[in-house]
This record gives sequence, C-alpha cells and structure tokens, in this order.
Amino acid sequence: MGSLAFERITLIGIGLIGSSIAREIREQGMAGHVTISTRSPETLKRAEELGLGDSYTLSAAEAVKGADLVIVSVPVGASGAVAEEIAPHLKPGALVTDVGSTKASVIAQMMPHMPPHVHFIPGHPIAGTEKSGPDAGFVGLFKGRWCILTPIEGTDRDALALLRAFWEAMGSMVDEMDPQHHDKVLAIVSHLPHIIAYNIVGTADDLETVTESEVIKYSASGFRDFTRLAASDPTMWRDVCLHNKDAILEMLARFSEDLAYLQRAIRWGEGDKLFELFTRTRAIRRSIVQAGQDVDAPDFGRHALDPK
Amino acid sequence: MGSLAFERITLIGIGLIGSSIAREIREQGMAGHVTISTRSPETLKRAEELGLGDSYTLSAAEAVKGADLVIVSVPVGASGAVAEEIAPHLKPGALVTDVGSTKASVIAQMMPHMPPHVHFIPGHPIAGTEKSGPDAGFVGLFKGRWCILTPIEGTDRDALALLRAFWEAMGSMVDEMDPQHHDKVLAIVSHLPHIIAYNIVGTADDLETVTESEVIKYSASGFRDFTRLAASDPTMWRDVCLHNKDAILEMLARFSEDLAYLQRAIRWGEGDKLFELFTRTRAIRRSIVQAGQDVDAPDFGRHALDPK
Repeated sequence: MGSLAFERITLIGIGLIGSSIAREIREQGMAGHVTISTRSPETLKRAEELGLGDSYTLSAAEAVKGADLVIVSVPVGASGAVAEEIAPHLKPGALVTDVGSTKASVIAQMMPHMPPHVHFIPGHPIAGTEKSGPDAGFVGLFKGRWCILTPIEGTDRDALALLRAFWEAMGSMVDEMDPQHHDKVLAIVSHLPHIIAYNIVGTADDLETVTESEVIKYSASGFRDFTRLAASDPTMWRDVCLHNKDAILEMLARFSEDLAYLQRAIRWGEGDKLFELFTRTRAIRRSIVQAGQDVDAPDFGRHALDPK
Repeated sequence: MGSLAFERITLIGIGLIGSSIAREIREQGMAGHVTISTRSPETLKRAEELGLGDSYTLSAAEAVKGADLVIVSVPVGASGAVAEEIAPHLKPGALVTDVGSTKASVIAQMMPHMPPHVHFIPGHPIAGTEKSGPDAGFVGLFKGRWCILTPIEGTDRDALALLRAFWEAMGSMVDEMDPQHHDKVLAIVSHLPHIIAYNIVGTADDLETVTESEVIKYSASGFRDFTRLAASDPTMWRDVCLHNKDAILEMLARFSEDLAYLQRAIRWGEGDKLFELFTRTRAIRRSIVQAGQDVDAPDFGRHALDPK
C-alpha cells in the first residue's frame, strides 16, 4: 500500500471516470479493499473482467457498507437516487464524494439524504475524453489536471485535507470553489463547448445541399475537432444540460449575442472587426499551452497518429 | 528527380501550405528549379534559411518567368492582385493554380487576368494546422487528405490530369467539384467551425464573472479544443469570411436556428430532445474515424504528448 491508504473504498459507477480512479487505486495500492457497484449488470461484469476492484455488486446500498471512502461517479441526474439508496448504510465517519460536472444541483440532490455522521464533500475532476464506459478509463487521466472541490459550510477540515490528498495522489492539482461559481466556470469552459459541438454536428447532419459523405471526407478542415466533443456520453450531457440550466442559458445568450455581432460584420464586410477578434483569440491559446493545459504540437499532435 | 517532374516550379506565398508544398517538392525531387516569392522580406529570408527553394524574390512578376507550374498560396483576398501582377509574365502553356479556401471568389478575382495561353485550374487542398508561416509546413501535411480541384469550363484535359498527378504526388486524394458547391461544402466543414471557435473563445475572454485564469486552468474540459482552431491565421480567416459570405451566412443562419431549438429544450427541460441529438452526433464521429479522416485515440491522442 502507498502512503495514502484507505481500508475500504467503494466506487459507485464505473465509467470513464470511475474506472480511471479504480485503475489509479489499484496501481498505487491505495486501498485494502475496493468495492465496485453499478446499475448495469453488463458494465459490472466488464469491470470484474478488467479486475478493477475486489468485490462487485449491483446494490449500491450493499456496496457502501463499511466503506471509508465512497466515490459516486454517475450522471448528475442520478445523484439524488444514489444518495437516498446509500445513506442508511454509510459507516459513521465515512467520506462521501462525487465527480459530477455540476455542483449546485448535486448538492441539492445529495445533501438532504446525507446523515450527520458522514463527511459529504462534492468534487469535480476536470478531466475526461470523448470515450465512455469501464474500458475507456486509464492511469494518468487526472495527471496535471485540476480537481475542484466545493465544500459545504462547516465541512470538517481533516476530511477535506484527506480528500485533497486523495486527488493529489490521483495526479491532480486541487482547487476549492463555491458551488455556484463552479457551475458558472464550467458552463463556459465545458458545457457550452460541448453544446456548441453537438449543435454544429447536428446542423451539418441536416443539410440538404451538402451530403453526409462530403462532410465526412472533408472534415479535416476543422469540423472533425467538433465531432470529438459531440461523441461524448449522451446521458451524461443530457443531465449536465438539465442540471446547470441557468448558467448554461446565460452563456448561450452571450455566445449568441457575440455570434450575431460577428455575423453582421461578415454581412457588411467589416474586415477590421473580424481581424481584431481573430487576433485576440490567439493569445488565449498561447496561455493555455503555457499553463500546461494543452499540447503545443500542431493539430494536437494528431499527425503522428493519423490513419493515413 | 521523381517520375513526376517540372523544369521550373514557382511558389507565390510560402506560409503553412506553400512551405509544405515546397518541402514535398524538395523531398521528392519534383522540380529542376523552385522559385519562391512572397511579399514580406522577413518571410522570404526565412524561406531561404530553410532552403525551401533554389531562388528567392520579392517580385511575383520576376518569379513566374519561365515557370511551368505556378502555385499561388496567399490569403484569398490577395489573389486578384497576384493574378494581375503575374499575368503578363506567364510562360505560354504554364499551369497556374492556387490553394485558396474559397473558390468562386478566387476565380472571379484571378480568371479575368489570365492570358489565354496559360492553364488556370483552381484548387484547394483540405489540409492544415493552426500554425502559420514557413516554419509551420511539413512533409506529410497532405497525405491521406483530399484536394478539391474546381476546373472552369473548357479546361484542358492534359493540364487537369497533370495537376491531379501533382496533388497525388503530394499524397492527396483528388476530387473535382463545381466552385459554388465547393464553397457551400467548405462553409459547413471548415468556415463555420472556425467562426464558431473564434466566437466562443471571444465570449469566454469577455466574461466578467469568470476570470481568464480560470478559463485557462480548466480548459481541458472542452474549451481547449476550440482554442486550437481560434489560433489560426487571422488574415487568412478574415479573407475567407469576406470571400465566402453568402454560403457562410446561410450556414450561420441554420446553426443559430438549431441552437435556438437546443436552447429552448434546455430551458424547458426537454431531456428527450437533448438525448436524441447527443446520440445522433456520435455516428458522424464514427464515420469520420472509419473514413481515415481522424484518429480513434481518445482526446486526439493528446494524452501521449500532454505536458503534464
């Protein structure tokens, strides 16, 4: 076992995020016993085949018994039901956290069920890929990525320090944030990009004048970047849209307003306005690369892997 | 020299595309002599330092003298001026082509200047990265990518076959298309994605409630994909917007209409509509990967290169 170890860790949900956590725990020997629970028998079977834990059960209630750390990694719309199911079976002193992409809604769903003898600290690792399911996870997913914790007032300092250390062991850098602010930040850096990507892929799919085969053949000219985000898990993203509605609608309104400005500049041939925006946006890319949050290789380094 | 060789090739413009062509020609020994011309003395000097050609001149008129193949790789807004400058100096029988991202506008700008004794065949290699300038080019950029030729009525068949063979030697697959249809296809697969990317990066940059440092730190959650496209050459993209206005405005209108539908579904909590779209878009991604137009590795394979 590593220096940070729990007697028993329970993972509820074993998709991309849950299974990546499981792999890190296994790799680093961070738990005496890992219990895995998910609602789908097929997924549970697959998790067992992959050897992601020590025991496996379809019952979340069973799964959490005796657990020191419980990590809920399910679509955010399912958080409330999971909380209700596990609450009566949580061990006193247990640390309960989640990985959901929206935080105010998850807190509203889970908090009312949490017994006073457990530490519930919501969290969100800012990491992922467009793939989903237990096969999609991998060691290193969280490395160098931020994990945001949104502790509720009165949270036990030791429990918070423990959860922070857990995510640091996953390779993450940890931030703390107010849940409402988290939801606003994620609306612009994650939710809006995914919605826009889904939307443009839908628009392209519906055209009468351009065939689907043309869209596919010539996608290397920009479109294919969007299709990656638009291949993300539909259940997860439906839930994100429904559970961070206000912040998403605010960002969508601003985006549309800005797009109308750009559209007008195109219509009236105002090249200077276009040039100003197109220049300004380059600086943000540079900052992201400098901050180590993206690769500097052209085309995301895809050329090395390109199936040509 | 390779099997497909020209006595003299002239490259007007030596940015990402021009310099990638130059590198392929050099690599394959496709020309007895390569002349490079560009308007910027710094860029020309850099091209010379990189050894991209055999002779270098700031004068496009000088550059084309005696050339068998002339490739114009400049922002589309500059095509007309280049055509006017080179026209009187073109050798009879010369093949003149371009690589511009819009075709109807390039034809309207260049065609009137072209003397009857040359073969002018517009073209567009569907390849690129977000980087620009002579250092950004590389051997392999065109490999496995499509190149669209939009020949004008009455184009000489032999000249067309020669240009097709040239692009095949670059590693491309070649398609022929009507210029208007090309502009419509590219509006959806390339122009709209870039405009949307520039726009969302601008929206994020303007927020008061979310800081720029937050946008940068958490960009791995989706946003960073957009910043790559939004780091593309501003002059090139200003010109594309101004020179493919009608098709872009049509695609923008459809995109906005679809986004309004999505926004309404979010506002009214219509999860089934969201789920339907988010599922449909996955299929297009699969087709693009199957067609060899993108990598199947999660996250574009970035994890292998990630600066973590």
